[in-house]
Amino acid sequence: MTEPLPPLLRACAGLPGEPGTLSGRVPVWFMRQAGRSLPEYRALRGEGTILDAIANVELACELTLQPVRRYGVDAAILYSDIVVPAAAIGFGVDVAPGTGPVVEHPFRSAADLQRLRPLEADLDTPYVVDTVRALVAELPDEVPLIGFAGAPFTVASYLVEGRPTRTWLRTKALMHGDEALWHQLMDRLADLAIASLRSQIDAGARAVQLFDSWAGALNPQDYARFVLPHSRKVFDAVARPGLPLIHFGVDTGELLGLMASAGATVMGVDWRVPLDEARRRVPDGVALQGNLDPAVCAAPWEAVAAAVRDVLRRNAGHPGHVFNLGHGVLPELDPEVLARVVELVHAEGRADGT
Amino acid sequence: MTEPLPPLLRACAGLPGEPGTLSGRVPVWFMRQAGRSLPEYRALRGEGTILDAIANVELACELTLQPVRRYGVDAAILYSDIVVPAAAIGFGVDVAPGTGPVVEHPFRSAADLQRLRPLEADLDTPYVVDTVRALVAELPDEVPLIGFAGAPFTVASYLVEGRPTRTWLRTKALMHGDEALWHQLMDRLADLAIASLRSQIDAGARAVQLFDSWAGALNPQDYARFVLPHSRKVFDAVARPGLPLIHFGVDTGELLGLMASAGATVMGVDWRVPLDEARRRVPDGVALQGNLDPAVCAAPWEAVAAAVRDVLRRNAGHPGHVFNLGHGVLPELDPEVLARVVELVHAEGRADGT
Repeated sequence: MTEPLPPLLRACAGLPGEPGTLSGRVPVWFMRQAGRSLPEYRALRGEGTILDAIANVELACELTLQPVRRYGVDAAILYSDIVVPAAAIGFGVDVAPGTGPVVEHPFRSAADLQRLRPLEADLDTPYVVDTVRALVAELPDEVPLIGFAGAPFTVASYLVEGRPTRTWLRTKALMHGDEALWHQLMDRLADLAIASLRSQIDAGARAVQLFDSWAGALNPQDYARFVLPHSRKVFDAVARPGLPLIHFGVDTGELLGLMASAGATVMGVDWRVPLDEARRRVPDGVALQGNLDPAVCAAPWEAVAAAVRDVLRRNAGHPGHVFNLGHGVLPELDPEVLARVVELVHAEGRADGT
Repeated sequence: MTEPLPPLLRACAGLPGEPGTLSGRVPVWFMRQAGRSLPEYRALRGEGTILDAIANVELACELTLQPVRRYGVDAAILYSDIVVPAAAIGFGVDVAPGTGPVVEHPFRSAADLQRLRPLEADLDTPYVVDTVRALVAELPDEVPLIGFAGAPFTVASYLVEGRPTRTWLRTKALMHGDEALWHQLMDRLADLAIASLRSQIDAGARAVQLFDSWAGALNPQDYARFVLPHSRKVFDAVARPGLPLIHFGVDTGELLGLMASAGATVMGVDWRVPLDEARRRVPDGVALQGNLDPAVCAAPWEAVAAAVRDVLRRNAGHPGHVFNLGHGVLPELDPEVLARVVELVHAEGRADGT
């Protein structure tokens, strides 16, 4: 008799489980489950930059494990950042506290392509590989480690804008103004994501998520022309039998079908699109991840519980559901509330396809 | 023989025009067409706050007219701000340069309802009424003045958060946590919008736009429960035969049908939803406004022109189209490009329903 799949992997594969057993759980984890909402995170994290913390294997392991212990979630996600590969090859990226990724010399012209050499993960980011290995050794079989990378578009937007943006003006001007250069940039960033994801998979990550956080800044036409081929290249290059390929961005209601067509086996859905509607926008066989509104978790528990139940109800009849927030955990949230969300999903979610 | 309707009013009514004549134009205007992208705006605006500028009738008129003269757009929109009514009744709202609306004492409890007395437009905002009257006297018949107000939800989000937010955490916590108080707040804000819009209509505004800029922060369930009844109350109270009622917010792809059902006769569409898809989400007879991606206007002209043509093409066959951006003009944009957009829409848009 074979070991049953952990709930996360079963749900990602769209397989039903058996009610009343571990396999019948709707699995749940939270984007940004490791982070400022946890007092133990703030206590341990110290004053260094996030890139320093990521490069410290022992610290990165512990920060990854904290939410698994506290919440009893069904997945760990590597403590890292989407700009790690670009920073590691020397593009000059840092993550400023309270701001986000900042780039001293943003990407401006073809000459900047030279600053994007291939990533040799074992040499450039050995700490990522070591952290994944250590986590895989530590985690129980039923809690898979999710590796991740930034999708080419979202990383490009940081490199081009030089800092977080709400308008993506320079990024859009570049893609529309010099399409050849844009595709060269995206191709190199796809290679970075591929190298990083492969190194994490080889080290034992059992699922990967490609974060295209800001893809929803584009309309479907522009997404299909300027982004989709590069995200598809990433998924094609890392796909392996049984390995869930999760894809996520906010404001992506119009893009869910296109993003799934890049090769995702699991589509993350932000809180704006009800899961029953999201189902209609992705191909059969693609699992869904999401999509509780993170801000609603600041409301009294009765309201949070009602929202959790609504998410579960809208996915009724489909075993392919990984419960998550519709975006990352907000720093202001009470961890006790998130712990109760996990309990409720485990108690009431039904992964038997009814 | 009656005077033909101005292009804006014809399109809002969904009526075809005659190709080759003024009536056959696809009308075009730009949200935030008066503003920092115009050198003549920066030269005239001076150092005072935006609320000071709005209270100066001569200045507000001139700032409203600048883009009409420069671009040849088919509508003027009152130079004002959605927080004007709340500020005028003394809630303690200011608009901080580079930040946006800030509230010294945010809305926190039932006691704060007392700070939201009814607006007496003639007494509280006489400058708005005077500016509308002066503009209507000045503008040619074919360029209607659009009045506007902030929708209850978007104004509430500023009053509750105290400043612009990307998470709407306190707003969502309030609506889910104290639904009775939430509805009382929204009811008072609906009354503010109604009083302000009525005063603008009575003074001669020939169309109104209700800006629910941030409604897209909500999923459809929450929008329907916490917002829709109040926006509907506003539209019901100001509706008059022949008066276009325009409704707009960003990130509202999932809400277009619901927002239209509030009573809008014209739905504004952000750039994320292609107009042919937006058509499928609103009832027959509702006109569309939009939806060129404002950031794409930073690209070389050929790319801008292609994007303009794509917007026109996706609306082909429907006379009910008001060309606009999918959000406001960005300060970085070159006014020359926007002038060429107007020319192109006038040259190639066909409002004959083919």
